[in-house]
Parts: sequence; C-alpha cells; structure tokens
Amino acid sequence: MTTSSGLFVTFEGGEGAGKSSQIRRLAETLRKQGYSVLVTREPGGSAGAEAVRHVILSGAAEAFGTRLEAMLFAAARNDHVEEVIRPALARGTVVLCDRFIDSSRVYQGVTGNLEPEFLKALERVAVNGLYPHLTLIMDIPAAIGLERARKRAEATGDNAPPDRFEKEEIETHEKRRQAFLDIAAAEPERCQVVDATRSEKIVAADILSLVQAHLPTLLDVPVAKAENAS
Amino acid sequence: MTTSSGLFVTFEGGEGAGKSSQIRRLAETLRKQGYSVLVTREPGGSAGAEAVRHVILSGAAEAFGTRLEAMLFAAARNDHVEEVIRPALARGTVVLCDRFIDSSRVYQGVTGNLEPEFLKALERVAVNGLYPHLTLIMDIPAAIGLERARKRAEATGDNAPPDRFEKEEIETHEKRRQAFLDIAAAEPERCQVVDATRSEKIVAADILSLVQAHLPTLLDVPVAKAENAS
Repeated sequence: MTTSSGLFVTFEGGEGAGKSSQIRRLAETLRKQGYSVLVTREPGGSAGAEAVRHVILSGAAEAFGTRLEAMLFAAARNDHVEEVIRPALARGTVVLCDRFIDSSRVYQGVTGNLEPEFLKALERVAVNGLYPHLTLIMDIPAAIGLERARKRAEATGDNAPPDRFEKEEIETHEKRRQAFLDIAAAEPERCQVVDATRSEKIVAADILSLVQAHLPTLLDVPVAKAENAS
Repeated sequence: MTTSSGLFVTFEGGEGAGKSSQIRRLAETLRKQGYSVLVTREPGGSAGAEAVRHVILSGAAEAFGTRLEAMLFAAARNDHVEEVIRPALARGTVVLCDRFIDSSRVYQGVTGNLEPEFLKALERVAVNGLYPHLTLIMDIPAAIGLERARKRAEATGDNAPPDRFEKEEIETHEKRRQAFLDIAAAEPERCQVVDATRSEKIVAADILSLVQAHLPTLLDVPVAKAENAS
C-alpha cells in the first residue's frame, strides 16, 4: 500500500440523482483549474474488473448465488483499486468515482441475505486500506429521482421505462435512499449529503465547494498534466 | 455460520506424496466403520467454484494478474465452503478435502508478490470462520516425490513428464515443502506432518489413527448414511 497524495472522491445515490452529470461538470471545472482528474466508475473501471463483470453478467452467473456474486464484485473492485485508483492517487490525481463501497453496502444490505460481518470483511479485502477521502451522497426522494430517470431515458432514446412506477419500486428506492443517509450519518467525516432536488447548477456549486475544502492536500505535489480519461 | 458437528480433514503436500490414494483409502475405511464421508478437492469442489475455476483457466485470465486471480480463487473457495463443506459438516459428515488453505499459502507465499496481510484477510473471508479440524501435511523430499509422480504418469499414460527434473524445479518443490513444514510448526494443534516416504499401507495406518483421535466428536450426532460422493 502506498500513501496517496491525490484526492479520492466517490459519488453515491439512487436513480435520477444526477451523479454522471455532476461528475462531468466537476471534472471539467477541476481540469480548468489545472488539476489532473481521472473519472471512473463501478462496477468495472479496470480491464480485470470489466472481465469479471462480463462473467457476472453472462449466463454463467445465474447459478452463482448472491454470495459468490458478492465475492466476484469484490475481486473486480480490488482490481479497480490496485490497477487504476491507487496508482492515479500516487501520481497526485483527483479521482472521481461513480459508485463505490456504499452502493455495495446499500444494495447488498437491502436484500439482506448475507451476514453483515462477511460483507464488512469482504469490503476490507476489496479496498485493501484505500477508502475515499470524500463521499458525496446525492440525495433525492425516490419518486422525483425515478421520474427524472424516466425523462432522461425518453430524451436519449434508451429503453423506455414505464410511465408510472409501481408503489413497490418506489418503496425499494426509498429504502435504499434511507440506507445511504444512514451511512452518511454514521460516517460524517467521510460522507456529505448533497440535496440533489435543486438545479444542476446550484448542486454543482455545492459539490465544488465541498471538494475544494479537501484540495489543499494536493498543494504539496506537482500538478500533473490533465489525464486523457473520460 | 453454523456450528459443525462433523469432522473436517484437509490433505496437503507436494507432488507424489500420495494424497489422492490416501484419501481414497481413508474414505473407504471410515465408510466401512459406518461414517458418512464426503471426498472433495480444491480448486473446485462446488458448481460455483468449478465455474470460477473455468474462468481462471480460460484465456481471459491471462490479463488478470496474480492479485485478481487470488481473489477469484478465494471466491471459489468461499462457494465450496458454504455450498458443500459447511452443510456436510452440519449433517455430521467426515469431509476429506484434497488441498485447502495451506496450498494457497504455500503457492502464493513462494511467489511472494502479494502482501501477506492481504492474503491473510483474503483467507479469512474465503473460509468465513470454517477452518479444518485436522490438516495432514504429507511430507516427502522433492526429488523422491517428483520421481514418484513421473512413474505414476507413465503408468496411467498421462502427459509424459521429463525423465530428469531440472535442478531448479527440485529447488522450487523443496521450498514449498519447507513452507508446508513451517505451517505445521506454527499451527501444531491443527497440523500433523505425515512421513510420506514410507509404504502406502503404513502411511494409511498412521493417517487412520490420527483421524480416529478426532472422531469422538462425532459420537454425539447420529451417523448419517454414507453419502454417494466420489
């Protein structure tokens, strides 16, 4: 494990919270300020992780069960951490990651069929000591978020979601939302809740100021040339 | 995690130590004595583990690197433990497993390119609290073991190994042998070293008495009908 000199920021939250747009905006702003920025995401994010993800999504995974699937996701995360995130941080890069440990906690926690102790141990192995410096929990009521996701899908021509969401689906999303808020409450030093119901511009300004509060840690390393990462 | 009432015995050691033959003999003897016996092996041993093994052995794994490979092996082991070994023990079965955690320790330890702390954490996640009651380290000098393995391959028509082993190959096997002996010395309550240079019959008698010393733990559970496992 190397001590990181960059800044590791993760974005979490449900559907329609605007994670991707905000990450794009933030990356652009920071690059203009001269920072080296790497945008990445989970699941996936490295060649090995994508290969494992491909295995999970293939038919073979049907027989796997949630436990083996959780271990394979952990294997993918560890590859992503060691091959992509840690080296980037060592170069002084700002790493913006779309979903990370909290999504696993929330999605696996809500299904509730794996022991919490097992999941904690698995998380520790996967991240191997590398936790985010800052996690932004993009918070939005499930009904609003789902409606936004629907409109976006319509606009981009993606698979058409239903006009109305089932009560059950909204309840599941609300449970996840609450689980994200619980994590934020339990780890206030790492997590910041961002009210994602506001306009994209206002949310972006809010996020920028939260991230900038962590940026002085970068001042002691030479600012690398902006990386050519999407 | 359920408390196991069966007996979990693992067999470890290098090439030509006679693990498979001894496991076959022991299973036969114990079944005649009325015990339910399950013979299994690693890597593999469960449907999910075999699927992961298939992925590792496929071309896709080339790009994986030793770290991701170690995580995938751990995923396979966890599946084997939870789907096969733990349920069998809960039924009061004697589980005989060809290779387990010590092979991982030795093979990964000798290559030495992963941090010991990472490997320990990975092992803990994989076994999830289920360690063998007894581990038999089948010990044989590398030169003798390799020669035996060569003769066996000749007899069974398997891929012909070289007539003479390179000095380097013998040295690698000797390093692994020493690593197994080091584990046995460090964990005397779990591990017993078995001198595998002696005749198959004498080694079998030795192993039977070591295993029988642990069998009283089975007396408080009804002896299940012998399982139809190979």
